Amino acid sequence: MSPIQEAALSGLAQDLYETIAELPIVSPHGHCDPRWWAEDSAFPDPAELLIIPDHYVFRMLYSQGVSLRDLGIGVAREDRDPRGIFRLFAQHWDRFLGTPSRGWLEHTLYKTLRIEVALTPDTADTVFDQIAARLATSAFRPRALFESMGLECLATTDGALDPLAAHQAIRESGWSGKVIPTFRPDDVLNPARSGHADNLARLGEMTGEDVSRYESFLAALRTRRAAFRALGATATDHDVPDLMTRWLDPAQIRALHDKAIAGALSASEGRAYYGHMLVEMAQMSAEDGMVMQIHAGSRRSTNRALLAEFGPDMGADIPHAVDWVAGMDALLNRVGNDPRLRVLLFTLDEGTYARELAPMAGHWPCLRLGPPWWFHDSPNGIRRYFDQVVESAGYWNLAGFNDDTRAFLSIPARHDTWRRGVALHLAGQVERGTFGRRDAKRLAPLLARDLAKMAYRLED
Amino acid sequence: MSPIQEAALSGLAQDLYETIAELPIVSPHGHCDPRWWAEDSAFPDPAELLIIPDHYVFRMLYSQGVSLRDLGIGVAREDRDPRGIFRLFAQHWDRFLGTPSRGWLEHTLYKTLRIEVALTPDTADTVFDQIAARLATSAFRPRALFESMGLECLATTDGALDPLAAHQAIRESGWSGKVIPTFRPDDVLNPARSGHADNLARLGEMTGEDVSRYESFLAALRTRRAAFRALGATATDHDVPDLMTRWLDPAQIRALHDKAIAGALSASEGRAYYGHMLVEMAQMSAEDGMVMQIHAGSRRSTNRALLAEFGPDMGADIPHAVDWVAGMDALLNRVGNDPRLRVLLFTLDEGTYARELAPMAGHWPCLRLGPPWWFHDSPNGIRRYFDQVVESAGYWNLAGFNDDTRAFLSIPARHDTWRRGVALHLAGQVERGTFGRRDAKRLAPLLARDLAKMAYRLED
Amino acid sequence: MSPIQEAALSGLAQDLYETIAELPIVSPHGHCDPRWWAEDSAFPDPAELLIIPDHYVFRMLYSQGVSLRDLGIGVAREDRDPRGIFRLFAQHWDRFLGTPSRGWLEHTLYKTLRIEVALTPDTADTVFDQIAARLATSAFRPRALFESMGLECLATTDGALDPLAAHQAIRESGWSGKVIPTFRPDDVLNPARSGHADNLARLGEMTGEDVSRYESFLAALRTRRAAFRALGATATDHDVPDLMTRWLDPAQIRALHDKAIAGALSASEGRAYYGHMLVEMAQMSAEDGMVMQIHAGSRRSTNRALLAEFGPDMGADIPHAVDWVAGMDALLNRVGNDPRLRVLLFTLDEGTYARELAPMAGHWPCLRLGPPWWFHDSPNGIRRYFDQVVESAGYWNLAGFNDDTRAFLSIPARHDTWRRGVALHLAGQVERGTFGRRDAKRLAPLLARDLAKMAYRLED
Repeated sequence: MSPIQEAALSGLAQDLYETIAELPIVSPHGHCDPRWWAEDSAFPDPAELLIIPDHYVFRMLYSQGVSLRDLGIGVAREDRDPRGIFRLFAQHWDRFLGTPSRGWLEHTLYKTLRIEVALTPDTADTVFDQIAARLATSAFRPRALFESMGLECLATTDGALDPLAAHQAIRESGWSGKVIPTFRPDDVLNPARSGHADNLARLGEMTGEDVSRYESFLAALRTRRAAFRALGATATDHDVPDLMTRWLDPAQIRALHDKAIAGALSASEGRAYYGHMLVEMAQMSAEDGMVMQIHAGSRRSTNRALLAEFGPDMGADIPHAVDWVAGMDALLNRVGNDPRLRVLLFTLDEGTYARELAPMAGHWPCLRLGPPWWFHDSPNGIRRYFDQVVESAGYWNLAGFNDDTRAFLSIPARHDTWRRGVALHLAGQVERGTFGRRDAKRLAPLLARDLAKMAYRLED
Repeated sequence: MSPIQEAALSGLAQDLYETIAELPIVSPHGHCDPRWWAEDSAFPDPAELLIIPDHYVFRMLYSQGVSLRDLGIGVAREDRDPRGIFRLFAQHWDRFLGTPSRGWLEHTLYKTLRIEVALTPDTADTVFDQIAARLATSAFRPRALFESMGLECLATTDGALDPLAAHQAIRESGWSGKVIPTFRPDDVLNPARSGHADNLARLGEMTGEDVSRYESFLAALRTRRAAFRALGATATDHDVPDLMTRWLDPAQIRALHDKAIAGALSASEGRAYYGHMLVEMAQMSAEDGMVMQIHAGSRRSTNRALLAEFGPDMGADIPHAVDWVAGMDALLNRVGNDPRLRVLLFTLDEGTYARELAPMAGHWPCLRLGPPWWFHDSPNGIRRYFDQVVESAGYWNLAGFNDDTRAFLSIPARHDTWRRGVALHLAGQVERGTFGRRDAKRLAPLLARDLAKMAYRLED
Repeated sequence: MSPIQEAALSGLAQDLYETIAELPIVSPHGHCDPRWWAEDSAFPDPAELLIIPDHYVFRMLYSQGVSLRDLGIGVAREDRDPRGIFRLFAQHWDRFLGTPSRGWLEHTLYKTLRIEVALTPDTADTVFDQIAARLATSAFRPRALFESMGLECLATTDGALDPLAAHQAIRESGWSGKVIPTFRPDDVLNPARSGHADNLARLGEMTGEDVSRYESFLAALRTRRAAFRALGATATDHDVPDLMTRWLDPAQIRALHDKAIAGALSASEGRAYYGHMLVEMAQMSAEDGMVMQIHAGSRRSTNRALLAEFGPDMGADIPHAVDWVAGMDALLNRVGNDPRLRVLLFTLDEGTYARELAPMAGHWPCLRLGPPWWFHDSPNGIRRYFDQVVESAGYWNLAGFNDDTRAFLSIPARHDTWRRGVALHLAGQVERGTFGRRDAKRLAPLLARDLAKMAYRLED
């Protein structure tokens, strides 16, 4: 028996949940490392697997006074004490009560890894050993897990300059799992990224284009997009800290591009340049059919001491308010009525669900709303999302679910959280008289899996 | 039996609902055409009645890839295929699942129009024919429907330059239905409106005032307000895309008015001018007792290609954030303590319910909060509204309900949605121990109808 | 039997509530007058006790057309008619339906004051007389009430220039009740406060420091902080209408301080100066261990006619939107990683709970989230708070509850509202499967009382 007591859902919600709980998983957006499936090596020790790379976990520990170095962050692998790190984590296990991290980790431990002892400060060593034993077996290698988890498809996220060697290797290995890349060109589009000018130079080398000429730069981007598509990519992804899109006239954008090549853009010029490039991306998406994802509104690395010591992604990325109407104006008014275009929007500003995003998705033919993201990919976040978007956007303007995780083992947990949320939402709709059971049963697999396939153009 | 299965509400909610479900309907704000009751002609075909004018309906279809022209929009009436339009709509009927449009249309079809076949893509022709047959009967003429719907009073919305001929004709017809106008002077007050300078000239002609002089312009506005009141109007209405009120000194406003007459205001001057005119309107309301409605925060016509091809109101009006405290500052501090003034505020930014609007309504004697508007006039929107406004504003600072619709046949549906929302809210209050059943029973008709009469000064 | 019918909570919620309902009360932040316990005199008449000082009460009455003067506000005590004021209040008693004020007052009347007649317009005189009779007894003197209410500790809020004579007197009286001050230095830190330059001069006199020198000004502040600590203070409190923190270089801050001494700062200079002073306060908190409270986002005295006639705190303080990430940036990046620092944040902008505050509290080791404040310290407000903060912040990054009231008799009512909210929240968590009953039982007293003691460093 599993150490977690699962709440059975109430009547209809449980019925609906059972119809979708075991559906294959489509994971169209996330941050897993494709080398796992290229190499199919055993995963490392429990601390390195579950704690050190999980910013949800270490940010909570840091907020409670645990030092990041004591968690092995910023410490060379050979100098880490995985068992000590795991003990430190277990000592603070109750600090996660009420958070989705706790739910995901419980699912990961007790269901995916089939650990049979409840984690407490006292059982830390036992649990550590059981996990390590599991990971040593062939059933817990990346490819075997991919299959036992019921993954139908998984997309990684890959920089524009990534040679995609791991994806190439997966293809060539003959393994049947569908792992595909996603084109994430922030490093060559957003001048605020460190090394932007160097990245442009590398893009030129990689594609054989003279990227100092703006038209050739666009050609280089098209070349890279095609290379991603050749390995199965159906989507691009864009991190947009301060949402702005803009269409500049040819002379303006060429002048800015000259400065970008020289690494000489001011901050405000850089924003205008990036705003223009997003519109170029939308236009290329209309041409080549790649679905464009926009993740907007995360102020990155707001703790500058941690950034200096440990680099980015240290748990101090904090959302801020986004004006979606103004921010998307240039892009939508240039290409938003094009029937070939598909743009998925992701927000961390829930205040925009009902006010902006649902009305926009309920109008523009190109738009679909992504699922709750990051801090809101949680039971309450999912409930608030449905509550606020469905009435104006309906269901067919939603993009289903994606887990957006780099924690591979948590993928079943995250999809399970979503599927429970779907079942609860639909049962509530029936209870409120919004529609009947037959429609709810029809909508359940749509929300659980099929909308994601449709939104990302993953249908065969 | 009706093809819709209605959810019975749970115990107390159902009891409360039954006490208010059949109350006469007061509709103090909306956009019906008064000529319907002046002429009392049969309504046109089902497509023209239910689909072509309903931006809730065609915006959802457009978002799902349906062309507006295929829906008859921008097509001369004689070139339209009403049956084909209705079929196209029926094919996408499931796209409306979860939206209030679906609920309103079901109520309109199955209860108001008494259609006995459930709408599906396959029954489109049958339903079309049944609707057409209903509309041909005398019981479905505008005046008969007004009476069978139990309408106690209905207010239309009419431009300042409207000669009000239809309202005059209704009065002279001897028909007893109470249909009254509402004074909506945006076209002569807001320089951002197209044709503003021409409208000023027409106002001068209509009233015999030399509107190029600012004082005479104000006199002309008073004349028009009086003309509306003479036909029963008790309220004015103001669309304020970007909320700002401002009080300018006499020299400043005269200088801006000179430019307004010449059509020479810059955008920022135009905003200042309109901000000042809103305060003038509030002052006139304090004088003449007309209730002032402010609908703020809809960014209009954000899809410029559709605006160019089809004009305004094409489903691309998207809400944006509003700062009510700063925006109302000049108006409230000039006239907000005047006991004669009544101002009703409507928002599309639910983030301001608990943060700004309820605290403001719980302080200023002139303010009342309008019901959930537009995208939020829905079961979830109504729940969120009560949840967030009652604790700071109480009930007597609310303005009850209005349907704000141009879809006459949907009026009973919309009031029914509100009344169910009222019953659910009050039952929840009893369950949470906020107050007892006796208070809930007393509050139910207040919220369902009486507050609207009080707020709009429609009590005899 | 009490005239209020209390809603029993449902199964588990009631069980949890019963385990915490009678816990001693910790009140670490509020606005009671310490002279009450220094002097231990009988409280004045019912109007002066319950109505005249309670801005929740008179703001609602004012919004419904009652004049403030008729409520005795701005009227000399000898010219007031307490019985008439109480009658006027009773006539409008139903206007409070649905508000937390009604719940608090019912609890205060029927439980704390043990009035046995339900308040109605008809029973106003009877209730008035019963309250007056209670107040005349020794059991309803401040010290006796403090004890019978089960108060474990109560903190007042005191200006930096307050000589703390009442606190000194309480200490010297030998009475065992724990009443402690809180250091609130707004008057000497925020140049927007009236009399700021004079206050600086008084600070100099009080401490013997030449506050015209910036370093000596800081020394004076340290002296006052120490004086507060000597009387038991563990916290400071800061009202920050427009949140901004800033770190200026020595030359800049000295130049601004020179202007501050001369009362010559412009508005924007004043904001920069106050932003810098908040960072100085945080640094002093890291040094001396005083917990720093920041209450941000209330736009004060927005009704200028009332401000001119009656002064501040007249019910026209209205919240506005706050950008916590930008606003706290300078403070957090200067001292936010210091393990000695503790900062409690309070917001009136619920839109920032899930978007900014919970993610920030779930990262920065110094931050704890204060409970729902002011307009949101209510059953629905508490539910929304838990719903939106727990998933990202967990429970241990919350600061428990404080009542923040100047209405001493309402303290048990307010803590009871919170404890019911805690029980409902935890029961919901169990029902949703977030955790089991054992964890819920463990969390109940933590949320009801212990987190507040921990957050404010009130543990012995």
